Amino acid sequence: MRFLHTADWHIGRRLHGFDLTQEQQAAFKQIEQIALDEKVDGVIIAGDLYDRSLPAESSVAQLNAMLQQLNLTDKLPIYAISGNHDSATRLATGTPWFKDTHFYMHTDLKQAFTPVELPDTQLFLLPYFEPFAAQEYFHDESLRTLELAFKPIVEKMVAQFNPAKKHLLVAHFFAAGSEQTESETKLTVGGLAAIPVSMLQDFDYVALGHLHGKDALHAKKVRYSGSPVKFSLSEANQQKGIWIVDTDPFELTFKPLKPLRDVQQLTASFAELTDPTFYQPLDRDNFFGMTITDNKPIPNLLTSLRKIYPNIVSLAHTDDYDTGVGYKGESGAQIRKQDPMDLLSHFYESVAKEPLTADQRKWATDALKIANEGKQ
Amino acid sequence: MRFLHTADWHIGRRLHGFDLTQEQQAAFKQIEQIALDEKVDGVIIAGDLYDRSLPAESSVAQLNAMLQQLNLTDKLPIYAISGNHDSATRLATGTPWFKDTHFYMHTDLKQAFTPVELPDTQLFLLPYFEPFAAQEYFHDESLRTLELAFKPIVEKMVAQFNPAKKHLLVAHFFAAGSEQTESETKLTVGGLAAIPVSMLQDFDYVALGHLHGKDALHAKKVRYSGSPVKFSLSEANQQKGIWIVDTDPFELTFKPLKPLRDVQQLTASFAELTDPTFYQPLDRDNFFGMTITDNKPIPNLLTSLRKIYPNIVSLAHTDDYDTGVGYKGESGAQIRKQDPMDLLSHFYESVAKEPLTADQRKWATDALKIANEGKQ
Repeated sequence: MRFLHTADWHIGRRLHGFDLTQEQQAAFKQIEQIALDEKVDGVIIAGDLYDRSLPAESSVAQLNAMLQQLNLTDKLPIYAISGNHDSATRLATGTPWFKDTHFYMHTDLKQAFTPVELPDTQLFLLPYFEPFAAQEYFHDESLRTLELAFKPIVEKMVAQFNPAKKHLLVAHFFAAGSEQTESETKLTVGGLAAIPVSMLQDFDYVALGHLHGKDALHAKKVRYSGSPVKFSLSEANQQKGIWIVDTDPFELTFKPLKPLRDVQQLTASFAELTDPTFYQPLDRDNFFGMTITDNKPIPNLLTSLRKIYPNIVSLAHTDDYDTGVGYKGESGAQIRKQDPMDLLSHFYESVAKEPLTADQRKWATDALKIANEGKQ
Repeated sequence: MRFLHTADWHIGRRLHGFDLTQEQQAAFKQIEQIALDEKVDGVIIAGDLYDRSLPAESSVAQLNAMLQQLNLTDKLPIYAISGNHDSATRLATGTPWFKDTHFYMHTDLKQAFTPVELPDTQLFLLPYFEPFAAQEYFHDESLRTLELAFKPIVEKMVAQFNPAKKHLLVAHFFAAGSEQTESETKLTVGGLAAIPVSMLQDFDYVALGHLHGKDALHAKKVRYSGSPVKFSLSEANQQKGIWIVDTDPFELTFKPLKPLRDVQQLTASFAELTDPTFYQPLDRDNFFGMTITDNKPIPNLLTSLRKIYPNIVSLAHTDDYDTGVGYKGESGAQIRKQDPMDLLSHFYESVAKEPLTADQRKWATDALKIANEGKQ
């Protein structure tokens, strides 16, 4: 069978305050067209359909229309799960009525153990869940982490494997070994959500959501599709798209999506950025993260740049930037090279006009030690 | 055909801070049982399913479960519309999938003109709408009020009447002539939402939502079902319930609902209220609005009363109550009898230690005049 694997639509998300509704819509139209052109047997959406548990009305209207288009107009089966950004309860609205048109939306852990039975494939749809839900479901308080909870979950799924069929898993978590980018880092609750890829070997394919880059994980049969739209500057260099998954024989094909307005990082001097020979080849409607290489302040910098680049999402300076404010000319880079205890001593002396006492120095050293241990 | 007519569930509503989830659930179970016992051909819910456009997750879960129970488990058709308290957009989630199981949820004015065609009945489901929606739909800016908009709406419906069938309208507005109670007064936008009952004469029955008492309107074939639960003290004396509507021959039967905890108004002295012979016959789990007839302050009044009546939702004093604070012993009633300009003069003099100037007196008189005109 052939599936389209996408995830992390995050409908309602903004890019540094810029509305992405049109970008989302453009990506959706491409996904829809690929699904139709490739004659897929269904569209897998691996969680985080919304950006927020309480989406705005406009986001609700947008996602409702997309799902209706795919399932009711295009007659494409949908296999979806809720992600950590979704409210499982809100996303569950209407789902008991959806199955008649082959639209499966699983939002509750217990639904994961009833696979969708297709002619030659069993599709297990595992929504995002907290360890507490697994503790409740298995009546086992020892399942304190996602990894611990995952073992009985996989076992229970494997127990229902029909050996004559392929076995697909759709899930939403941080698979160990994946590399993360800025925009989803904050979504991961510490190490809680890390599942070793080795635990997924029983499946013929695992369609993951959560990380926004398709290259976050390079396991052969465990993949992130990534988001269809770039949601942060750290995703500027990612190629967004979807996977076409053929199950027999197994084959993965990446189909890129063309962004409506791309997200780009520019590092240049003010003179270069405002030089027509520099900017004329660029698509200036794109969203730009800019790093200015000048090391002296430029008056009305952002205003001047916005006349050329209307969608600047961030503006930074390279490390040798001198603000002109006389604090001994230390740059961020220089400060970061100093010993934290020296920095604290100097700061304390300049404020309190007396040196740290021996006790204070000991407390600070202990606190620093604890902080450093927490990093590892 | 036989329908059950209910409305104004207001899932998520609280009574002066008290949770009504259990009351709502108890009322729902009775409605469900009546629908099954009476073998109705469908359940009409005439708007305001939720109390808020942005219902809490727990409210979403509760309403979703109710609708699923009625439609998917009990196999009862549902004919519902959005009310002014609902977010039409949010309530529309999933609705395109519901029709296969005879669950109609109209949330958009344009849906009102496609009646649900039943063997001998046409059911027009008109969701709550703002005049602006009618202006857009009919491309007619003159439709500035609900009453103006209602004329072309009814005409368009009547144009689709199949004379061989009965014609039912489900709607959510304030029908002129209805008497209102406190809890929905604030929901009505001035006179905007008033529709004369005479405009509804083309229909064999109009199942209304919006007002919370079944006796708000006594037209023969235009009825409010009222809410299934008492939502304010002003509804204390209402008998809550639902209508069983037989269309041929036309017959209306009111089926009362038994409240889990009732809402009651008590007016008595502290001595009476704390006398076991007074309170023992009462169901003290009820919600009580209390008016204390004592005219002197009683220390720890509310605390003492709550030991006997745990669910006191409001506490008031009769008009002859003397707070003991020495402001010449004027009661609210006495103050209301005084001339507003005299009151202002006295107040100003007591605060500013000088009389109003002629200018000030004129400004106040003008302002009072404008305020009085606004009342009419």
